[in-house]
Amino acid sequence: MKVCRRETFNSAHRLFRSDWSNEKNEEVFGKCSNPNFHGHNYVLETWIEGDIDPETGYVIDLKLLKQIIKSEVSDKFDHTNLNLDCKEFENLNPTAENISFVIWNLLRAKIDSKFNLTVKLWETENNIFEYSGN
Amino acid sequence: MKVCRRETFNSAHRLFRSDWSNEKNEEVFGKCSNPNFHGHNYVLETWIEGDIDPETGYVIDLKLLKQIIKSEVSDKFDHTNLNLDCKEFENLNPTAENISFVIWNLLRAKIDSKFNLTVKLWETENNIFEYSGN
Amino acid sequence: MKVCRRETFNSAHRLFRSDWSNEKNEEVFGKCSNPNFHGHNYVLETWIEGDIDPETGYVIDLKLLKQIIKSEVSDKFDHTNLNLDCKEFENLNPTAENISFVIWNLLRAKIDSKFNLTVKLWETENNIFEYSGN
Amino acid sequence: MKVCRRETFNSAHRLFRSDWSNEKNEEVFGKCSNPNFHGHNYVLETWIEGDIDPETGYVIDLKLLKQIIKSEVSDKFDHTNLNLDCKEFENLNPTAENISFVIWNLLRAKIDSKFNLTVKLWETENNIFEYSGN
Amino acid sequence: MKVCRRETFNSAHRLFRSDWSNEKNEEVFGKCSNPNFHGHNYVLETWIEGDIDPETGYVIDLKLLKQIIKSEVSDKFDHTNLNLDCKEFENLNPTAENISFVIWNLLRAKIDSKFNLTVKLWETENNIFEYSGN
Amino acid sequence: MKVCRRETFNSAHRLFRSDWSNEKNEEVFGKCSNPNFHGHNYVLETWIEGDIDPETGYVIDLKLLKQIIKSEVSDKFDHTNLNLDCKEFENLNPTAENISFVIWNLLRAKIDSKFNLTVKLWETENNIFEYSGN
Repeated sequence: MKVCRRETFNSAHRLFRSDWSNEKNEEVFGKCSNPNFHGHNYVLETWIEGDIDPETGYVIDLKLLKQIIKSEVSDKFDHTNLNLDCKEFENLNPTAENISFVIWNLLRAKIDSKFNLTVKLWETENNIFEYSGN
Repeated sequence: MKVCRRETFNSAHRLFRSDWSNEKNEEVFGKCSNPNFHGHNYVLETWIEGDIDPETGYVIDLKLLKQIIKSEVSDKFDHTNLNLDCKEFENLNPTAENISFVIWNLLRAKIDSKFNLTVKLWETENNIFEYSGN
Repeated sequence: MKVCRRETFNSAHRLFRSDWSNEKNEEVFGKCSNPNFHGHNYVLETWIEGDIDPETGYVIDLKLLKQIIKSEVSDKFDHTNLNLDCKEFENLNPTAENISFVIWNLLRAKIDSKFNLTVKLWETENNIFEYSGN
Repeated sequence: MKVCRRETFNSAHRLFRSDWSNEKNEEVFGKCSNPNFHGHNYVLETWIEGDIDPETGYVIDLKLLKQIIKSEVSDKFDHTNLNLDCKEFENLNPTAENISFVIWNLLRAKIDSKFNLTVKLWETENNIFEYSGN
Repeated sequence: MKVCRRETFNSAHRLFRSDWSNEKNEEVFGKCSNPNFHGHNYVLETWIEGDIDPETGYVIDLKLLKQIIKSEVSDKFDHTNLNLDCKEFENLNPTAENISFVIWNLLRAKIDSKFNLTVKLWETENNIFEYSGN
Repeated sequence: MKVCRRETFNSAHRLFRSDWSNEKNEEVFGKCSNPNFHGHNYVLETWIEGDIDPETGYVIDLKLLKQIIKSEVSDKFDHTNLNLDCKEFENLNPTAENISFVIWNLLRAKIDSKFNLTVKLWETENNIFEYSGN
């Protein structure tokens, strides 16, 4: 049984490698590397897979999952600049793939290891990403 | 090849174990255990996995799948109180996990065993559930 | 300039006039009058029309509007049975038209009279309602 | 007859008045005034009202409207920082109200005066804005 | 008070004037004039404005409105070729504007004159049309 | 890591086997076999599974994926009649299952074999299809 909580956060970012010049960054990442940043409404689905607890009829209490997402994701990334404000991306290019990877690892550390975890991230309505660990 | 039919149904329910007191139910389930019930527009995706029939180009005729969902799910649960009107939840707490489990079993009994079956259920736009059997 | 905040609430209800028999109620309202209730995820858009405040660039601070909607609508109706739990519908049939009318009046009393007010309510994805006062 | 073209653009911004201190900005605008910016996927509906041209059956060729939106809105604002990159907001706080006002004026200058014009802007899925001129 | 019922229909069409050559049609209408047609999932919102009936709490019974839309719109246009199968477009170019105009007139003839009527039509997720009569 | 690009195309089609009579086609496929065709707004999600390239932080540049979808799918099928205009369906009934199969094969030929590929196709908002190869 899989259960999911959907949340959103709004952030600025630019695709950028600090070991490349602005020109090289623009050549590879195009307008996504605008030096003054751009931004997105990120939509995040957090999927937990496990057994139904016969006591509660829940896999996991979604109120609890919501709190974990708040403390691990929203409080860290919402209304921030991913490149400048977030230590997770100090040395990591904030592509949606890397954002998904970072979020998965932040959540994985807080979610009981008996559960499988998948995150699905919409950067725009047309660009979607999914990560379940290796 | 997987094919899916999406349908909706509207029901009242409360999260409730009859072997617990109202106080214990409220402590565990919070406002979802309101004694006078609350309700949802449930959205159900029914996914069938199988081979394409070379005769028709269908995996399964979705008109047929729609009829099965109507008789097994909509006719039973739409515009009902899951706790009071539905024998499936007489002794089962109608969490979305348990609703998904019940629907999967109702549909599984009517769908050819050569097909795999998955149900995906939205209880709200932010809480989503998926079950594929064991 | 019009600005809108979108919120949701989940309630049980039945269409019912206490001065009619159950039979008359069922004849007129059909399955929507199921005696044990059914329910919906209501989606509410609250639209405020006014001038942009040159100080803030806002028509109204949407954080404030969100608080008004919480205290006047969500706290009253979310996770309730509209017929049994809400004094507003003690003697009023909770059709979506009447729910829209009640919500508009509750919000109107709390929103500065310099603003025009419109509420738009989705009872299902196919049934939508809008009220702007007389 | 009204016709509409829907487009999107992705921008960074912060709510900010340069004649106020960062502290005053944060007091009034909260996390929306984060000094390093945040961002959004803006969704823009551009509505044109006019008569059907009996020659073409169009009010306006939506391919033409799409080009006007591209040159006046997307090319100016997509993948930018509204505060730093866009002269329209050099001295104007980029609230969604002001963005709607700016876009309406940019489009109004390029659309035949025989047509009425309305813009509708989603800053998030819950915050929506609409402007039709005075 | 305004109430709305949302329905969909799926049709083939081409933009085409029979008094123009295929070349002229293609010059004006581009790929929308492909001689072998293309098609759309049309989404139709039918909005009725009137007073709440104090007897029922309805403006109009949406089950009744649904039946009118079925007989006047879906039965006529769903799973058809608008150009070839529908007498309404025998001599009328089936642009979305003209489709909206035709639907409005078909519904207007069946809906009590005490009600105002507006139709809103999505031809794609990005092209939207609205007609309320003159 | 999975990444997805979402695109749309609008086509006419009819379900039809040329080795069956019109009567047999109508008996099996119903209104979907209307001789003059009907049509749909198809929504296509193309999912690529692979490792994150440590150089770019991308699995695949979505601008590149968008170009491949344009040349292999949109340029071939958008604003066409699948039965009459597209050689892929000259001898293949254009059910959504077969359309998904054809699109998967067209894309598979152009996408590096180190990536897994899945296509997900919405024919309507209620009928969805997914294919990942054998």
